[in-house]
Amino acid sequence: MERTVEPGSGPILVLGCGLVGASAAAGWTAAGHEVWGHDRRDLAPLVERGWLARRVPIEALAEAAVVVLALPVGGILAALRRLPFRAGQLVTDTGSVKGAVMAAAAALPPGVRFVGGHPMAGEARGGYEAARPDLFRGAAWAVVARSGAGEHGGAESEAVAALARELGATPVPCAAGEHDRVVALTSHLPQLLATAVAAELEGRDEPLAAALIGRGGRAFLRLAGSGYEVWRDILEHNRAEVERALEAVRGRAAQASDALEEDFAAARRLAERLAK
Amino acid sequence: MERTVEPGSGPILVLGCGLVGASAAAGWTAAGHEVWGHDRRDLAPLVERGWLARRVPIEALAEAAVVVLALPVGGILAALRRLPFRAGQLVTDTGSVKGAVMAAAAALPPGVRFVGGHPMAGEARGGYEAARPDLFRGAAWAVVARSGAGEHGGAESEAVAALARELGATPVPCAAGEHDRVVALTSHLPQLLATAVAAELEGRDEPLAAALIGRGGRAFLRLAGSGYEVWRDILEHNRAEVERALEAVRGRAAQASDALEEDFAAARRLAERLAK
Repeated sequence: MERTVEPGSGPILVLGCGLVGASAAAGWTAAGHEVWGHDRRDLAPLVERGWLARRVPIEALAEAAVVVLALPVGGILAALRRLPFRAGQLVTDTGSVKGAVMAAAAALPPGVRFVGGHPMAGEARGGYEAARPDLFRGAAWAVVARSGAGEHGGAESEAVAALARELGATPVPCAAGEHDRVVALTSHLPQLLATAVAAELEGRDEPLAAALIGRGGRAFLRLAGSGYEVWRDILEHNRAEVERALEAVRGRAAQASDALEEDFAAARRLAERLAK
Repeated sequence: MERTVEPGSGPILVLGCGLVGASAAAGWTAAGHEVWGHDRRDLAPLVERGWLARRVPIEALAEAAVVVLALPVGGILAALRRLPFRAGQLVTDTGSVKGAVMAAAAALPPGVRFVGGHPMAGEARGGYEAARPDLFRGAAWAVVARSGAGEHGGAESEAVAALARELGATPVPCAAGEHDRVVALTSHLPQLLATAVAAELEGRDEPLAAALIGRGGRAFLRLAGSGYEVWRDILEHNRAEVERALEAVRGRAAQASDALEEDFAAARRLAERLAK
């Protein structure tokens, strides 16, 4: 496998060892990297499992070759504003919104090599208890180069793409705006709608609600267990696209039968492409 | 297993041998019943597979002990209005809407024993090609007694419940209005929203849409392949409840963060109950 971050060139520091951070740490450790973790939580279980070489204080930041911000979006933005990254360091993130992150990264000191990232591999339950080394296998990993980094995103984009491939993910190069438009529909609005349908069911207190959910309804509601802590930030920082998507979807759902027939046909075309 | 429709008491006639009808026919045949099928389509493949004893013309209706209307809702309503059911016959259906069906059944001749039914076990793809004898295993099967049929729905409700159990389903006795309110949220609105999100994605022509869908989004969009033929009828005959559900869900999805935090908590409570 082509590597652009050679094991031995310096440690990877994962800031935030929840579901995504701990899973990535496990995979990179297995690929031969030295992986450090930093988190408010006790990381001893991850060190014992061999997923992290060690837990480090934030003062170890300067010693890392690569820094991965695997935090909720608000935490990523705060880290980009406050942490003393050094020139030459490769910094990336795993946040579900890219416009706000790239805007914050634009203010980094010259020489800090930042690339936005977003693995499409969440689970309803966060925390490292749910982590697993194969979380990203077969998943897309959006890779967003800074504007001005060249047509193909430059060497740092390739380095982040290679780190994604080491976890079994498929790097998908894209622009921040394009990413945020698409995931508003493929992830953020589905989350909001699954939450809203489940909350409406709970609020109505229909005794038979749980009994009368079939396989299709259960699939639709799979996201309903997600935690607000993570989604508050995502919905706040992609608010315009999510609201636009919500109004478009409401309009389609409320329309009369002729247009609805066309939408069923269009939806089936997408379903058939997804099934391939 | 307790039986109230004894094999040998007379054949079960399945009207409409698509996904649901053919799957039920296969299961009832395996349970020892003589099962006849009627459909516009050639049913020879189902007879060859041993899922049906034979294909019969509609004139065989009077000879059946049990008639199962496994048609789209519009077809069920037309059958209830037009077919010459005989006194003593047990008639049931598998339609996804119960209010309109029970209203049509109220006009049946005296002595025809009608019970509404709805197995919660659809798949995106219809047709007997997708049918399987275990389609209903573990699924709920709503059983709706006619008003005036007694507190527990009477002997005919128990007969339909027993037929559901023979397929591995769990009968769920309920009233028509209760059923239609609940499935508007657990099935009909999820279908409409999955279709609308997928159609919006197709309509925007975002090249990366299919690449940037994670597991959660794929689950949400599982219903997007469903066919309009079946859903047109469902959405038409449960329109008021589906519109009410759509407006409630839109209001929740558009609300500010404090209320949204409560909705995430309520949604998680439902998700936890469903996971049990």
